[in-house]
Amino acid sequence: MLHFENDYSEGAHPNVLRRLIDTNSAQLTGYGEDECSVEAKRKIAQACGKPDADVFLLVGGTQSNQVVISSLLTSYEGVVAADTGHVSMHEAGAIETAGHKVLTIPGVNGKIEADALERFLAAFFEDPNHDHMVFPGMVYISYPTEYGTLYSKDELTRISSVCHRYDLPLYADGARLGYALACPQSDLTLTDIAELCDVFYIGGTKVGALCGEAVVFPGGNAPAHMLTMIKQHGALLAKGRLVGAQFDALFTDDLYMRISRNAIETAASLREALIERGYRFYIDSPTNQIFIILEDSALARLAKDVIFSIWERFDDEHTVIRLATSWATKQSDVDALVALL
Amino acid sequence: MLHFENDYSEGAHPNVLRRLIDTNSAQLTGYGEDECSVEAKRKIAQACGKPDADVFLLVGGTQSNQVVISSLLTSYEGVVAADTGHVSMHEAGAIETAGHKVLTIPGVNGKIEADALERFLAAFFEDPNHDHMVFPGMVYISYPTEYGTLYSKDELTRISSVCHRYDLPLYADGARLGYALACPQSDLTLTDIAELCDVFYIGGTKVGALCGEAVVFPGGNAPAHMLTMIKQHGALLAKGRLVGAQFDALFTDDLYMRISRNAIETAASLREALIERGYRFYIDSPTNQIFIILEDSALARLAKDVIFSIWERFDDEHTVIRLATSWATKQSDVDALVALL
Amino acid sequence: MLHFENDYSEGAHPNVLRRLIDTNSAQLTGYGEDECSVEAKRKIAQACGKPDADVFLLVGGTQSNQVVISSLLTSYEGVVAADTGHVSMHEAGAIETAGHKVLTIPGVNGKIEADALERFLAAFFEDPNHDHMVFPGMVYISYPTEYGTLYSKDELTRISSVCHRYDLPLYADGARLGYALACPQSDLTLTDIAELCDVFYIGGTKVGALCGEAVVFPGGNAPAHMLTMIKQHGALLAKGRLVGAQFDALFTDDLYMRISRNAIETAASLREALIERGYRFYIDSPTNQIFIILEDSALARLAKDVIFSIWERFDDEHTVIRLATSWATKQSDVDALVALL
Amino acid sequence: MLHFENDYSEGAHPNVLRRLIDTNSAQLTGYGEDECSVEAKRKIAQACGKPDADVFLLVGGTQSNQVVISSLLTSYEGVVAADTGHVSMHEAGAIETAGHKVLTIPGVNGKIEADALERFLAAFFEDPNHDHMVFPGMVYISYPTEYGTLYSKDELTRISSVCHRYDLPLYADGARLGYALACPQSDLTLTDIAELCDVFYIGGTKVGALCGEAVVFPGGNAPAHMLTMIKQHGALLAKGRLVGAQFDALFTDDLYMRISRNAIETAASLREALIERGYRFYIDSPTNQIFIILEDSALARLAKDVIFSIWERFDDEHTVIRLATSWATKQSDVDALVALL
Repeated sequence: MLHFENDYSEGAHPNVLRRLIDTNSAQLTGYGEDECSVEAKRKIAQACGKPDADVFLLVGGTQSNQVVISSLLTSYEGVVAADTGHVSMHEAGAIETAGHKVLTIPGVNGKIEADALERFLAAFFEDPNHDHMVFPGMVYISYPTEYGTLYSKDELTRISSVCHRYDLPLYADGARLGYALACPQSDLTLTDIAELCDVFYIGGTKVGALCGEAVVFPGGNAPAHMLTMIKQHGALLAKGRLVGAQFDALFTDDLYMRISRNAIETAASLREALIERGYRFYIDSPTNQIFIILEDSALARLAKDVIFSIWERFDDEHTVIRLATSWATKQSDVDALVALL
Repeated sequence: MLHFENDYSEGAHPNVLRRLIDTNSAQLTGYGEDECSVEAKRKIAQACGKPDADVFLLVGGTQSNQVVISSLLTSYEGVVAADTGHVSMHEAGAIETAGHKVLTIPGVNGKIEADALERFLAAFFEDPNHDHMVFPGMVYISYPTEYGTLYSKDELTRISSVCHRYDLPLYADGARLGYALACPQSDLTLTDIAELCDVFYIGGTKVGALCGEAVVFPGGNAPAHMLTMIKQHGALLAKGRLVGAQFDALFTDDLYMRISRNAIETAASLREALIERGYRFYIDSPTNQIFIILEDSALARLAKDVIFSIWERFDDEHTVIRLATSWATKQSDVDALVALL
Repeated sequence: MLHFENDYSEGAHPNVLRRLIDTNSAQLTGYGEDECSVEAKRKIAQACGKPDADVFLLVGGTQSNQVVISSLLTSYEGVVAADTGHVSMHEAGAIETAGHKVLTIPGVNGKIEADALERFLAAFFEDPNHDHMVFPGMVYISYPTEYGTLYSKDELTRISSVCHRYDLPLYADGARLGYALACPQSDLTLTDIAELCDVFYIGGTKVGALCGEAVVFPGGNAPAHMLTMIKQHGALLAKGRLVGAQFDALFTDDLYMRISRNAIETAASLREALIERGYRFYIDSPTNQIFIILEDSALARLAKDVIFSIWERFDDEHTVIRLATSWATKQSDVDALVALL
Repeated sequence: MLHFENDYSEGAHPNVLRRLIDTNSAQLTGYGEDECSVEAKRKIAQACGKPDADVFLLVGGTQSNQVVISSLLTSYEGVVAADTGHVSMHEAGAIETAGHKVLTIPGVNGKIEADALERFLAAFFEDPNHDHMVFPGMVYISYPTEYGTLYSKDELTRISSVCHRYDLPLYADGARLGYALACPQSDLTLTDIAELCDVFYIGGTKVGALCGEAVVFPGGNAPAHMLTMIKQHGALLAKGRLVGAQFDALFTDDLYMRISRNAIETAASLREALIERGYRFYIDSPTNQIFIILEDSALARLAKDVIFSIWERFDDEHTVIRLATSWATKQSDVDALVALL
């Protein structure tokens, strides 16, 4: 079977695994104070061009979103997100469990638009009854989005400036951050992200790690007692080294960006073949997730040799499927898939 | 000034106040076990045609919604509501504070449609990833809606049957229940509501009481230890008599329905005058709330003599305003308003 | 039957009821912006000697505790209270529902001791693992306590100064505040309370009102958007006038203190009779709650004519009961009770 | 330096690491449906003598406690624990964040006593005001306790039977379960635990894994939609294999118990040496944690060569320290430590 169902089906990149092996017998301090974690945080801060950044190494994406959002919001505030945002749809209510509303605005191809955001915020504050409503307390975007789409530097700059005009922190969910940054269509760099966002996380789970996400407050602007809030959400690892060692490896010799490129290159090659063969695309996504519309009969045929994700029904006879590449995707597998198309 | 801004600007109906005065010096048991409360509950259950109903007397609407919804949902469940629903928009996150998501579906004139509800539920359970999503755990409607519109018996029956097919309790927010039931366009009675809904509340605050809402579980189907859950939300009155006496009065000699009719009749007379004079209606609402679209200049003029609610901007030059009547509205005030139009 | 079971068995003081009647037909603004509420708040602030105090009129005690505590604490903080504190024991988890721990220290006769508080706080901050623990974020006392006992001015001053040394707000639950202040043994005044506490509430439900508690931030130090947080907890009355009118009456012509004295005087007369007759006291409480230890046979006899509260079992043959007086207690009822003893 | 500060300073046992390496390049399903996880769960269920057990693989201990406890309790219920219980003291309010109170009873050497539990439960249900209190909804014990002490089979049987008489699930926190079971003083086996407890977790983080705890519902009695509740708390790993592979290794060829014994044997040898040299023990703990009382001058001396945990101050001149062994402790390190004593 050919695996294109997601970007988390392999284990860790060999260098990442190697670091775990090499440090395995070292006796290290717990709770993220170990040398691996300290070193990882230093390298991440440096890669962000923000040596004074506060960095926290968490385990997973939903967890990071829950911890970050609940640590930044006051009780009567919610987080503004696109209606298709991961926090809005696919996190089983993790934000609401923490007591906060996700305030949705209609997304366009998975993205928030600065103007729509501005209108939403203006309307809120102009509403004479807004004291009876949930206050927008921060803005969540995903980069790349859940649909694999990208914000341009101009778009992100405009969103950032709307946020700051309203004094709201801008938070970017970077579960697949590497795949956005490695994309030729992207004109944003990691340092841009660190400049424009108030907090974001660099996804490890989907980019070469067994687990782990690095939450970055680029301005050293983490709330006080962040460790306690992490603990409170069950998100503090006794062996912080587990994520520390992995991010240390990912941020050594530019590994994170190097392996991200593989996902983009294999996706590009797959996308090209799909275009050539006249496949119909559900959305124009330049990163590692490709959404195509298949007739149900074609779907059944493909399923014999390939594992992919059913995204949603398109109409009575068609289905949207997702094909995802990753840091681990082999070009030979892409070629085999193309041969089947 | 003429007051048409809402339906809670007066105190209590004289009979209600009288009952408070008459019982004032009686020494009664606390926490809703007093004779007034017991009697009120009995009368309410009887009026619902459900002598075995469980009835709880709470203080306010948001509080009732929070208590009922959080008492019925399991942690991973949310409440389905129209996007315009009060719980969704105007309760400052009371549902999310209690840990639950409001799952919105697009409302039509403030109402949920049975088909849209069915599609939403079907799509949820068919979604291969629904285990990562908030489960629909109950359905919330408001009757009348926030826009003063009504469900027909057929519409409510169909919604009820979708709910029950999916094993979800149907909950009706009846903050203005009397005004719906008293409306000639309504073909629903209180006993119909009690038949079709699994839980609902009969609003007192907006219909003759100083405060108070009666939550009814018509099937005697209240969750165990409801009193403790009420207490836990700060919603248990030491002097339960305060609400008990008021509802006792409201459900004596059909007072609740009788005074509800005044709101409907005065609204009808106002609506007729508005139609005659060619006013533009924002929505066709047959109950006690009338939404009209005014030029901003006309708005300013009207504001000199009348207090009304600004609903929302319609366009650059027009505004939607709400004129509300109530159990206490005098026909003479309506006439005075009409004279001004 | 003679009622001595609690201090909330009557309705409202006649003056309070009168104000409700007098203002009943006035058309007033909602949500606490009405003239009654504004006037009540002004009078309360003045009585506290703090004209710039922020005052919020809520409905009940548990609600006030939940709203105040959750509005002041950050997510990782808890409230320090005596193990016998109302928030700790008898509020069905209202504080935990809002996400916060009650950090208990052993009370002495229902009171916190400044030294014990200091030791607790010092131990917390000295604990090398305190980042893994709930931070003390504020201190809760009840005045008078749940056992009817009083803090002296010196004791409260010392607690206040421990709190401020640790930068923790001190909050006093004054469900029966009048009964403490009216007590000859008390050397604290309302202005003292306003000077020494950062927030407190003046109980109305148990002191002459049908419902209502006035939360006071004497320094005008209420958190931003308090109204939204009140709404979020279902604690915002549409007809804010209900509590406004009552507190307006209670703080006119010193009514609150005048009626409080009745509770104290009747309790004193009852206490004296009990002492004379050799009754055994469970605790030495100078306010309106008297706790005595009765043989179970005597208990059964008394229950024929008197309603009292069973407090707790003392031993196999004895029970602690509570006899409570209130603003409404008649001396003739005390005399009748004494005759029975 | 000699490391005796805790039992999580090394990485993973070589066999565990080996399984991660061996499975690293396999393309596996996400979210715990992979073969490694399935196999691990099967082996765990078998080791428990409960082939139909529901097993969930989570990442950490606080997380497991939060997820299990909040999934079992209804909103108005709390968890009964010893006052020294981890959930009560050292989890930064993870239980309260999830809305529940920890109801503490005084522990004896870290343990709950069946009689004290019975008295607590009986007193709760006999209390005429218990509807205003948090209901006990389950019972939490740690085995071994936070002080390294053990329940005997008789003690656990009695606690279990009190729980079941009151219809409360009994939950055992087994962060160090192996170290209890491997202890010669223990007369409990894993199958006993599975028989007597309704849910428990088998700790991996402290017993040979990089991370991971296996939550076991031995009767196949997990609540419905447990996966969604796990997700909701940010506790669902995309790469479930990470914990799956590790527990697969730990439950192959009895590895979990074999490596647990090393901790016990090295601790025994250290304890014996401490006894011989006349050291003063703070508590008699037969497992891998040894608590001794040192003069502060001796403490300073020891700290030059040994890393240990400061537990708490004993008095003005003495401190309680903890020396912990683990699956990874070398006898040579124990010998070196003994030579220093």
